[in-house]
This record gives sequence, structure tokens and C-alpha cells, in this order.
Amino acid sequence: MEKINLKNKLSMFSDHWSPKVITELNNYQIKLVKIKGDFVWHNHEDTDELFLVLEGKMKIEFKDKIIELNEGEMYVVPKGIEHKPYAESECKIMLIEPRDVVNTGENKNELTASNDVWI
Amino acid sequence: MEKINLKNKLSMFSDHWSPKVITELNNYQIKLVKIKGDFVWHNHEDTDELFLVLEGKMKIEFKDKIIELNEGEMYVVPKGIEHKPYAESECKIMLIEPRDVVNTGENKNELTASNDVWI
Repeated sequence: MEKINLKNKLSMFSDHWSPKVITELNNYQIKLVKIKGDFVWHNHEDTDELFLVLEGKMKIEFKDKIIELNEGEMYVVPKGIEHKPYAESECKIMLIEPRDVVNTGENKNELTASNDVWI
Repeated sequence: MEKINLKNKLSMFSDHWSPKVITELNNYQIKLVKIKGDFVWHNHEDTDELFLVLEGKMKIEFKDKIIELNEGEMYVVPKGIEHKPYAESECKIMLIEPRDVVNTGENKNELTASNDVWI
């Protein structure tokens, strides 16, 4: 395999809320995603999900709190926990989760992205 | 859980070649490690291992090539592949690998670090 440069990979797409796979580690995928505005409430029944902010800032709303993440900060959303990511301005994020995780979890809607899209 | 700030966590230790766990994602661990100088040849028979350079630069030597990683670059070492990380100057790295992975793989020696040390 080749080494992966995060900035190069981020320059390859501009759409929001549509995670792109950049590599795999066993059955886990490392994804990049750009977000802006509100996502939908959802959860992932079978897996935790890791968010790491690469550029910008974002918030993750939970039923009982709001976590604000700045550049260089990460948060692991536990499996089964309802959450809603959002960002006032564009924010660039790295996600880590098992292969086959759908971005909107159990809540299929117009923001449900194609899965397993590689850049 | 609390959010995790990578720079804060990196300020909490100064030893080399001794990975510190900062969070878990299912049965995977996210670790920080500072490296300087030469590590030992080793492999991990059962798992891939992801390196992401946070500050500085490092190299990973393989039997047939050398990969140089700069800040913001990552590489996944496939399971079973012999490799030797090294860095001329101190380099700060994030690792992702399953729980219970030993830093020197099958090659136990004086660089084998205590496992599952959290900061």
C-alpha cells in the first residue's frame, strides 16, 4: 500500500455528510468526511464511532449534553447512543468505525450516504 | 466519557517507545506514542497496525522498502509483515490497533513496553 496524506485526500472531494474511505485496518475503516449544518438524530446499534476533528469545529448533540470538538480533539460515541452531529461552518473530520457502518445508522433518510466509497 | 485533546494528552508523558492508551472503540485502542531513534524489527501476526504522524516525521523500514511519514500522513502495516519504525528526531504518533497488542509483536526484548497503560 501507499502512505496516505490526509490533506491530499481532503482536497479530493467537497460534498458534505458523505464519508469517504481512505484505508482499512483489519475490518475497520478510516473515513474522511466534511460536514456543514445539521445532521439527523441516529444511533449505531452495534458499534462505537470515533470522531476526530482535523480542521474546523463541530458539535455532537446528545439527549443530555452537547460536546464541542475543536481541531485535534476526538470523541467516541458509544454504541446505541442517540446523537446528532452539526457544524456551523464546514468542518473536516476523520471517522473510525467497522466496515459496513451506515452514516445515518438505523435512521434511513435523504442524508443516508452511499457506503464504502473510496478516495 | 469526556472529549480527548491530542495535544493535552501528548503533554502528559515524555518517554519513548511506550504507547499510552487514550480511548477505546469497541475492542480497538487508540494510543499515543513518542518515538526517537531505532526500534526493533518485529511483526504482529494477527493484526494490521495503523500509524498516523501527529508531529515530526518518522520512517518505517520494511524488508523491501522504506516509507517516510510526515505530519498528517498515515500508513497501515499489514499483519504479519516485518517492520522497523525509526525517527531521527522525536516524532509523535497516533496508533490504532486491537486491545492487547504488544508493541514489539513476537519479538520480546528490552523495548517491550507495558501494555494497556492509560493516560
